[in-house]
Amino acid sequence: MPYELYYWPTIQGRGEFVRLALEEAGADYIDAARESEGVAVMMRLMEHAGHPPFAPPFLKDGDTVIGQTAAILLYLGARHDLAPKDPEGGLWTHQIQLTIADFVAEAHDTHHPVAVSLYYEDQKAEALRRSADFRQNRIPKFLDWFDTILARNPSGDRHLVGNRLTYADLSLFQAVEGLSYAFPKAMKATLKDAPRVAALHEAVAQRPRIKAYLASPRRIPFNEEGLFRHYPELDG
Amino acid sequence: MPYELYYWPTIQGRGEFVRLALEEAGADYIDAARESEGVAVMMRLMEHAGHPPFAPPFLKDGDTVIGQTAAILLYLGARHDLAPKDPEGGLWTHQIQLTIADFVAEAHDTHHPVAVSLYYEDQKAEALRRSADFRQNRIPKFLDWFDTILARNPSGDRHLVGNRLTYADLSLFQAVEGLSYAFPKAMKATLKDAPRVAALHEAVAQRPRIKAYLASPRRIPFNEEGLFRHYPELDG
Repeated sequence: MPYELYYWPTIQGRGEFVRLALEEAGADYIDAARESEGVAVMMRLMEHAGHPPFAPPFLKDGDTVIGQTAAILLYLGARHDLAPKDPEGGLWTHQIQLTIADFVAEAHDTHHPVAVSLYYEDQKAEALRRSADFRQNRIPKFLDWFDTILARNPSGDRHLVGNRLTYADLSLFQAVEGLSYAFPKAMKATLKDAPRVAALHEAVAQRPRIKAYLASPRRIPFNEEGLFRHYPELDG
Repeated sequence: MPYELYYWPTIQGRGEFVRLALEEAGADYIDAARESEGVAVMMRLMEHAGHPPFAPPFLKDGDTVIGQTAAILLYLGARHDLAPKDPEGGLWTHQIQLTIADFVAEAHDTHHPVAVSLYYEDQKAEALRRSADFRQNRIPKFLDWFDTILARNPSGDRHLVGNRLTYADLSLFQAVEGLSYAFPKAMKATLKDAPRVAALHEAVAQRPRIKAYLASPRRIPFNEEGLFRHYPELDG
């Protein structure tokens, strides 16, 4: 039985971190909310599941429903060899993923610093202030941390953990990809100081399954409804 | 060898979620950054550890250093019987914890909606707007979700998962405690619509080890340097 991924059908958003893992694994899955009636099914599951997710994305594997992006990746990583089998390596991978989640949440709040329930236009003044801090302080701090842990990986700096791809590598690729869409000027400048992160981003994009996925209609283009939005005024 | 918890020594903050789990478990631990030279040791570990944490809190267990609150609790939960042993129950507990982490991050941003690097006073206008949305929309939405999953627990509504205490119960207690400090008026009103959450909060406070801990000098009082801050103007 294929996995069913439920996420908003017109954006990459947080669902994309799960899609990338499913694609790299070659897993049998349905992007269920993009099917006919899919959003209605998604809303019913959120309302009525025994373990209701607080928000999309969530993954349905038979009768099991799992929410929270990092928890979904913890589950998929163990099943599809996208994380080390040893407990310490598995936990380190998850810790990195949680840090990527924090980074991504901050990226979201650059365009929604006041409320998710308001339009960007209604919080633009606040967004300008928050984005300036994000560009000047937060992007450098996060990228430096990722570059440091790549440099410190005893198996080499091509992967975040060990000598093989993990879901954390896929997620860092996506964070860099999304932020490069949203903040092209700031990211171009800051990535110069994080060469290992830039190299990992390039390498993931060239993996055969990821490359095929990115060129396929399954990859939703970035847009100004999603997590990563390009508003030129926020890029300084 | 005792665990060493590293966190800012003058606030509860995110470290408190770990302290509560260690206290309930009766684990042998040192609140290491509160010792003499502890903050200097913490900063050195963050700089030089093989697996450097992005930020405190982190836990040192022998040579293993674990950052990210939810990852620390995943680790401690399995070792100290604060989470179900079965994988599905364990993952559900973790999913709830990640949702509490999201709630807590939003609570933090009510007083720091622009930048952690700025004082509250320098982002007070934005804080007023964000807090209004948080009180009116986000607190009710999160508390309703916690109340729903308590109601839907097949083992009864006294615990979030199964029929025994988990680290998620401890963390929900702390989230309610912190938010009741920060937003006493809003929380008093909203908890009326989440009676199971209110009952869980009361029950956790009465557990012998938690009760003893809360009355001890090990429990740092809430203050306006931490995650949960009481600024009356933000409580509406």
